[in-house]
Amino acid sequence: MFHHVKELQFNARVSKPDPKFATLLLEQFGGANGELKAAMQYFVQAFSCRQPYPDKYDMLMDIATEEFSHLEIVGATIQMLLGPVPAEMKDASNSKDLEKGFESSGLAKLVTGGKAGKEGFIHEAMSNPLFLTEAPGPQVTNSVGVPWSGYYVNANADLTVDLRSNIAAESRAKIVYEYLMQFTDDPLVKESLSFLMTREITHMQVFTAALETVQPNFPPGILQGDSRYLHVYTNMSNGASARGPWNEGQGPWSDGGQWQYVSDPIQAVRESDGMLKLPRQRRSDTAEAMDEKLSKMRKEELSRAVPDGENQWSSYPQTSLESPTYKKAS
Amino acid sequence: MFHHVKELQFNARVSKPDPKFATLLLEQFGGANGELKAAMQYFVQAFSCRQPYPDKYDMLMDIATEEFSHLEIVGATIQMLLGPVPAEMKDASNSKDLEKGFESSGLAKLVTGGKAGKEGFIHEAMSNPLFLTEAPGPQVTNSVGVPWSGYYVNANADLTVDLRSNIAAESRAKIVYEYLMQFTDDPLVKESLSFLMTREITHMQVFTAALETVQPNFPPGILQGDSRYLHVYTNMSNGASARGPWNEGQGPWSDGGQWQYVSDPIQAVRESDGMLKLPRQRRSDTAEAMDEKLSKMRKEELSRAVPDGENQWSSYPQTSLESPTYKKAS
Amino acid sequence: MFHHVKELQFNARVSKPDPKFATLLLEQFGGANGELKAAMQYFVQAFSCRQPYPDKYDMLMDIATEEFSHLEIVGATIQMLLGPVPAEMKDASNSKDLEKGFESSGLAKLVTGGKAGKEGFIHEAMSNPLFLTEAPGPQVTNSVGVPWSGYYVNANADLTVDLRSNIAAESRAKIVYEYLMQFTDDPLVKESLSFLMTREITHMQVFTAALETVQPNFPPGILQGDSRYLHVYTNMSNGASARGPWNEGQGPWSDGGQWQYVSDPIQAVRESDGMLKLPRQRRSDTAEAMDEKLSKMRKEELSRAVPDGENQWSSYPQTSLESPTYKKAS
Amino acid sequence: MFHHVKELQFNARVSKPDPKFATLLLEQFGGANGELKAAMQYFVQAFSCRQPYPDKYDMLMDIATEEFSHLEIVGATIQMLLGPVPAEMKDASNSKDLEKGFESSGLAKLVTGGKAGKEGFIHEAMSNPLFLTEAPGPQVTNSVGVPWSGYYVNANADLTVDLRSNIAAESRAKIVYEYLMQFTDDPLVKESLSFLMTREITHMQVFTAALETVQPNFPPGILQGDSRYLHVYTNMSNGASARGPWNEGQGPWSDGGQWQYVSDPIQAVRESDGMLKLPRQRRSDTAEAMDEKLSKMRKEELSRAVPDGENQWSSYPQTSLESPTYKKAS
Amino acid sequence: MFHHVKELQFNARVSKPDPKFATLLLEQFGGANGELKAAMQYFVQAFSCRQPYPDKYDMLMDIATEEFSHLEIVGATIQMLLGPVPAEMKDASNSKDLEKGFESSGLAKLVTGGKAGKEGFIHEAMSNPLFLTEAPGPQVTNSVGVPWSGYYVNANADLTVDLRSNIAAESRAKIVYEYLMQFTDDPLVKESLSFLMTREITHMQVFTAALETVQPNFPPGILQGDSRYLHVYTNMSNGASARGPWNEGQGPWSDGGQWQYVSDPIQAVRESDGMLKLPRQRRSDTAEAMDEKLSKMRKEELSRAVPDGENQWSSYPQTSLESPTYKKAS
Amino acid sequence: MFHHVKELQFNARVSKPDPKFATLLLEQFGGANGELKAAMQYFVQAFSCRQPYPDKYDMLMDIATEEFSHLEIVGATIQMLLGPVPAEMKDASNSKDLEKGFESSGLAKLVTGGKAGKEGFIHEAMSNPLFLTEAPGPQVTNSVGVPWSGYYVNANADLTVDLRSNIAAESRAKIVYEYLMQFTDDPLVKESLSFLMTREITHMQVFTAALETVQPNFPPGILQGDSRYLHVYTNMSNGASARGPWNEGQGPWSDGGQWQYVSDPIQAVRESDGMLKLPRQRRSDTAEAMDEKLSKMRKEELSRAVPDGENQWSSYPQTSLESPTYKKAS
Repeated sequence: MFHHVKELQFNARVSKPDPKFATLLLEQFGGANGELKAAMQYFVQAFSCRQPYPDKYDMLMDIATEEFSHLEIVGATIQMLLGPVPAEMKDASNSKDLEKGFESSGLAKLVTGGKAGKEGFIHEAMSNPLFLTEAPGPQVTNSVGVPWSGYYVNANADLTVDLRSNIAAESRAKIVYEYLMQFTDDPLVKESLSFLMTREITHMQVFTAALETVQPNFPPGILQGDSRYLHVYTNMSNGASARGPWNEGQGPWSDGGQWQYVSDPIQAVRESDGMLKLPRQRRSDTAEAMDEKLSKMRKEELSRAVPDGENQWSSYPQTSLESPTYKKAS
Repeated sequence: MFHHVKELQFNARVSKPDPKFATLLLEQFGGANGELKAAMQYFVQAFSCRQPYPDKYDMLMDIATEEFSHLEIVGATIQMLLGPVPAEMKDASNSKDLEKGFESSGLAKLVTGGKAGKEGFIHEAMSNPLFLTEAPGPQVTNSVGVPWSGYYVNANADLTVDLRSNIAAESRAKIVYEYLMQFTDDPLVKESLSFLMTREITHMQVFTAALETVQPNFPPGILQGDSRYLHVYTNMSNGASARGPWNEGQGPWSDGGQWQYVSDPIQAVRESDGMLKLPRQRRSDTAEAMDEKLSKMRKEELSRAVPDGENQWSSYPQTSLESPTYKKAS
Repeated sequence: MFHHVKELQFNARVSKPDPKFATLLLEQFGGANGELKAAMQYFVQAFSCRQPYPDKYDMLMDIATEEFSHLEIVGATIQMLLGPVPAEMKDASNSKDLEKGFESSGLAKLVTGGKAGKEGFIHEAMSNPLFLTEAPGPQVTNSVGVPWSGYYVNANADLTVDLRSNIAAESRAKIVYEYLMQFTDDPLVKESLSFLMTREITHMQVFTAALETVQPNFPPGILQGDSRYLHVYTNMSNGASARGPWNEGQGPWSDGGQWQYVSDPIQAVRESDGMLKLPRQRRSDTAEAMDEKLSKMRKEELSRAVPDGENQWSSYPQTSLESPTYKKAS
Repeated sequence: MFHHVKELQFNARVSKPDPKFATLLLEQFGGANGELKAAMQYFVQAFSCRQPYPDKYDMLMDIATEEFSHLEIVGATIQMLLGPVPAEMKDASNSKDLEKGFESSGLAKLVTGGKAGKEGFIHEAMSNPLFLTEAPGPQVTNSVGVPWSGYYVNANADLTVDLRSNIAAESRAKIVYEYLMQFTDDPLVKESLSFLMTREITHMQVFTAALETVQPNFPPGILQGDSRYLHVYTNMSNGASARGPWNEGQGPWSDGGQWQYVSDPIQAVRESDGMLKLPRQRRSDTAEAMDEKLSKMRKEELSRAVPDGENQWSSYPQTSLESPTYKKAS
Repeated sequence: MFHHVKELQFNARVSKPDPKFATLLLEQFGGANGELKAAMQYFVQAFSCRQPYPDKYDMLMDIATEEFSHLEIVGATIQMLLGPVPAEMKDASNSKDLEKGFESSGLAKLVTGGKAGKEGFIHEAMSNPLFLTEAPGPQVTNSVGVPWSGYYVNANADLTVDLRSNIAAESRAKIVYEYLMQFTDDPLVKESLSFLMTREITHMQVFTAALETVQPNFPPGILQGDSRYLHVYTNMSNGASARGPWNEGQGPWSDGGQWQYVSDPIQAVRESDGMLKLPRQRRSDTAEAMDEKLSKMRKEELSRAVPDGENQWSSYPQTSLESPTYKKAS
Repeated sequence: MFHHVKELQFNARVSKPDPKFATLLLEQFGGANGELKAAMQYFVQAFSCRQPYPDKYDMLMDIATEEFSHLEIVGATIQMLLGPVPAEMKDASNSKDLEKGFESSGLAKLVTGGKAGKEGFIHEAMSNPLFLTEAPGPQVTNSVGVPWSGYYVNANADLTVDLRSNIAAESRAKIVYEYLMQFTDDPLVKESLSFLMTREITHMQVFTAALETVQPNFPPGILQGDSRYLHVYTNMSNGASARGPWNEGQGPWSDGGQWQYVSDPIQAVRESDGMLKLPRQRRSDTAEAMDEKLSKMRKEELSRAVPDGENQWSSYPQTSLESPTYKKAS
């Protein structure tokens, strides 16, 4: 259940209207890496954690709720940046009095300082036609008016996958705020953006720390890779080739072995009958044992928390982290 | 700012897993008339009310917050309806052991009672492939997997328009719950759906009452219609024609006048030079006066509430309804 | 079957080209609240009325057909507003002669009066890049180029729902025309917009009158609400709270009872075990009786009109409102 | 202006309900190659022809109007195929009476003959969940519920391009009907589909004939290709290569010259400094002359038909093909 | 398997940065008729040809691969047109130093020559807000920021349909390049565009030649049209009617017969009981024989190439055109 | 420039047709985490690296090219899984001979073994209606038919952001393959899936290693967070709260300091005047210095590689990693 607190989480203010920056700021309202995406991503991921991993559920819902609160800050800022536009759009004289010049209208004065005619105003305001045609206020779109999509949300019901998705999502949200801060010089708006940008960094650290508590967390899921194809870099292009820690020497794993660099993969594919002739290496026994062990562990974590029959989400009041139907590990 | 209360607003429970109904129920999670749409619609509309109409803002945010709480109930129910599916999808033996028959696997037992082979299971589960391929949990899509779109939200920054959009939106949400209730016989799920359906009816009444407090509220916006085209029904089809209160007698207006029925609009258009020859009627003077009066009223309401310079959304603590920068009518 | 009449329903004219306003006007061609949406919404709703409610079918098809005729007016206006742009885009000298200055080209003269160079032209024309890259003509998009979506159409196969959706849809279409009229000062274009805006008001009244003829029409559908949750307003936010007819006193219903205001819903939810402890009130017997009565009535209306076996849509000629397979009530 | 004729263009009938085929048939209602796409494509293309090419305008509007009439046939068929489903969805006993078995309900009898329980029904009906959750009637989606998109429409304001787009569009529509006819054995439905499929073939021939009347029509637009790259086939893959009239001998052009086959384009690109070292061939003078000639011709056709000042679309009555503001070639 | 060659297929260069043209050029990167659409269309069509029609497969994959190479050229050009924008967006002083004027910043100098303030820059750069908010680089969108959609791809698993789709697709791609060439005067960019435009013409000719090798290729698919509706033009509009080879005289078919022109289709439909009373013509026997013959031929071509049991796509090395499991016609 | 190698990178085979699994497998062809998304993501990211970071460009293009090669494997497998469906859909007898029973047709035998009638077949095949209505072959959609979207691609022109996006993308692709492997028991298909799944793990390691070579890489971009809000966890929910390394003790940073846990953020916000009263901490001087240092470094890396005037992407032949216009650091 949600509760709305009338105070914004950060004291959002603007020094003066700036409809153009309002357009850019829509990117963080209804854009691919904006606050609604973040809020919905953690909110949706939380459902699959609720019963098996109530501590991670609590964390995800805390941050989802904070992101909804950030969405509110962004929306409030957009609305304030639009300033008198909504009032001017109720001025019938703008549309009815065909003889009177547009230059003396409120809309003209507002945007152009009275010098430009109607054409000038439209030109200025064209930054986001939807502000002129649909509504002078925040909309569930990005900065070019493309509607927010439910497919922005990455939720795959696997904690090690979801937390990595979140680290990446916060990285993107951070850089978008960094870019946006270059396009306003309103110090009050910058204050709010700086707060919001910082919180994205914080959340990256929260998710990084949480990912560390899930062990093992690599590879994500339960199945190990096939060792014949695992530490192999295929050079899919001709000419000068770049070499570095990503394709030579010891890779980012702990258990020995080096990158195997296939410099001519076309030849390699032909000679191996499309890889079918590669020998099965020793290490795969370990991999299969690991598959079984992890599978057993994760399956038990999940099935233990879900009752066979009737199921209930919350207790009233909810005084522990677990659902009332949770069965503790014996 | 939002706060998350760990108890669900309604004590959502399920009697047993039912993945098929989970698929249908997605319609109210991420569908065109679902809870996310409702929550976001009122939330977005609230921004343009915040400063000029703080009482309507409070109402819209109350209901937006309740709809987010309903979204949580729907998501929790979907997750519980999926039951052991998430656990089974961590069972490596389902995918690794090529010799062992699928029939003895947990996934098979779960869905088919052990009788059917893997093909049977996929067949059963095909109801929503995304549960099998992306994640066993709620997703931000409707019941056929189409992602939620920001364009579902209707917010036009005019209270009389927005409240009518809301009345219609709640009507649609109500009928979708009514349809859904036919496809489950789980009494616990029905309890939750009945609660959610009832609240849609309640919200229709809230918005209807609120619309009455805005006067005049017809036509929406500030401009009156052109009386030459206003009370005219054009019969755009041949053959037998239906007549009724929507095209004959007194229409749904108070000030006299009857429906004018144009039975042959093709002829009428030709003879009037595409309507240009229609005489301008007397009543239009009244209309223009009304345009001016309403325009003045609405513009003043909006501009009074928005300061010329610096603007601030909340006070700390927020002890009155108004923004700290609100200027009262003198 | 449709027939095309070569005369536009309204004599659409423009005083001079204005490509920028053409961009804005796309909102009513392929936008969320534009003419195509309206036309398709009534057209699609009509199918479920055809056999059970042939009078409403006739009304819906009349208005759908008028909206297609309005779509044609909007498209024609956009095309005329683009003026010489299509011709200039066939001028090979614009693209081939690299030495000749752009300033003397037709495209430059057209848009900038010959003063600006190519950069200036692109700048001016950037209002809608699709006019420059795909086609100088109307497109099935809104004013920012987002394609029209079939999900704009609200059709739920229940007359009381659909008519409310239509009242709201016309409200939105009306306000969008009102906004658009502020951004042109071409008196001929204003004439057309004023006609189109007025017709939206008319259609609101048609649908309002039609909704009145369906009784009972509240709540929509056949199921009554659960009286325990029905007249209850939940105050989902802290601090100062707004009170009004939408949450105190008698609500917009006829049968007595007052709004029940829950000022602390968190506490209420906890104490009622998530509402489960609320007593079942008397009035619910009436509700169940109403459910049965309405269900019987609507089901009979629908099933009477649809034959068990072979079905046929039209008679030739169609001299009555009913389908040839319609069975009259005995 | 459109007029609705109550008789369907083809006497659409069904022998009995078949909700599954209704789902498939949605592909031609709101699918990528369905009737709405066709209707809107020709309707939108017509706007840019109206003034310069009124004969082509007449043809495009005739066929657009016929496609809207086909859309109506498809929608009517879907509605009839759904049969009693709408009526059953108004049966409150399906959702209210928790004790009574589902097997005896109307929905169950309808779909399963009374043998299967509710689960069986949902299973059967799952073919299109939107029929169960949103409305039992046609929807503006394809057969998997994806909404129709305005970007399905190809309209590029060039007759030789648009007519080729139409030939291809009709080809696709034809094959979709051919596929659909395999999935129904209702002879009445087949009759309607056969009519609709045939009309697609007819329209291919109409557009083919119309394309022939525009000369020259190849290449589309006004600019000739650069002869250095024009008759060159680049073999972008290794191994055995297929040769045929598409890359050897005389190509589909009239003026001599043979396909030039580049068997090792990597080498060719390296040696020619990325094509920059290719010699400019003689023939390009001809090409430039052609550019100029065509440009002049097309530009004049377009600009002649559009007045400099005021413009008007229709005359009343419209007794000639041209707009009232059309200026004839002197 | 693909291999990347570090050299671009054409030596793409720019004379100087031009972010505005970069925006327009996105239309050919991720637009409806751009290079990604072309590449994916031929790539997807190729799968259904691989086994039955390996020569057409080779052609489709050659051109798909070339289109991916063109996509690379377009992306490289966009990136170069953005010039120093990416570097400037890493300049912290643009966002941090609130006191320092924006006019002296790099971003300002870059775009406006130092004269305009920040507002001017945003105004200039507003051409594509996504370059400012998400990334200064090519994006998978069209010129207005609408994301590329998989539904742009037309692939219907029938060679005569697919090749016609391709001819039309290349026509559209050609005209878009022709339009784009008008909006840049950078001779180096024009060189690249001219190369790319020419290749679209070439591909039209390749597909035209390939379509000729499939016989018969009209109508597409296997079913002939119903002769009662086949050579019939229906005049769906009133007033002056255009006549031409598309509705009078001999149509574009070889076997005699003339266009049948129905001048009053409403009357015709009524009198024929919705076409049901039309006599079945002789010619249909021929049509049915053709259906059978073509069906047998195509089905055999397809089934011969696909083994009943195990199937394998490639041989290693692939020295012939056929799959290793291909069965030659006996 | 791309080159197509006729051999698949992995020898994809199937044991027998399985159209249902073909439907599920579409998720990795045109789904949100499928091969096309991966290929396009790295391909698009590569453009902004080409000139400043040619080694990373080489890596991104290698992997993009491999992902295109994987897309080909997935498409080939889908086509082979459809087996004889394409051939059967050319069988005219399925659609023409109304008297002959469907049971004896090829389509029926294929899918149901001859026992079921047409209804049974449609039922079986309903898994993906697009295979029946549009084309029996791979389509650019996910497993429920939703078209691939350009917005799936995350490319933000910052290496530390993009590499994190890639690590997360590979995690998701890995888990989707893991899920898919549960729904086939064809050992040959499993072989291919196992290869593809393993390569996702490999790519995670490549990107992880590459991210390490960019220093500093946290926070992404150039701006440091505001230390007042940085190491602060806000407990946005009531009741029992989970504590762990993500909100207590030392966080995942090296330089001392502990998590600051705000247990009552509502109170904290009110008391700090919406955070404005928080003191500015010492550490921020370091942060600003870091901002400047990083900004200078990144800006120089980017601007050094891009010439002021003419720019060229490739040299012919390309014998070094750098563009021909690259300026080395002095």
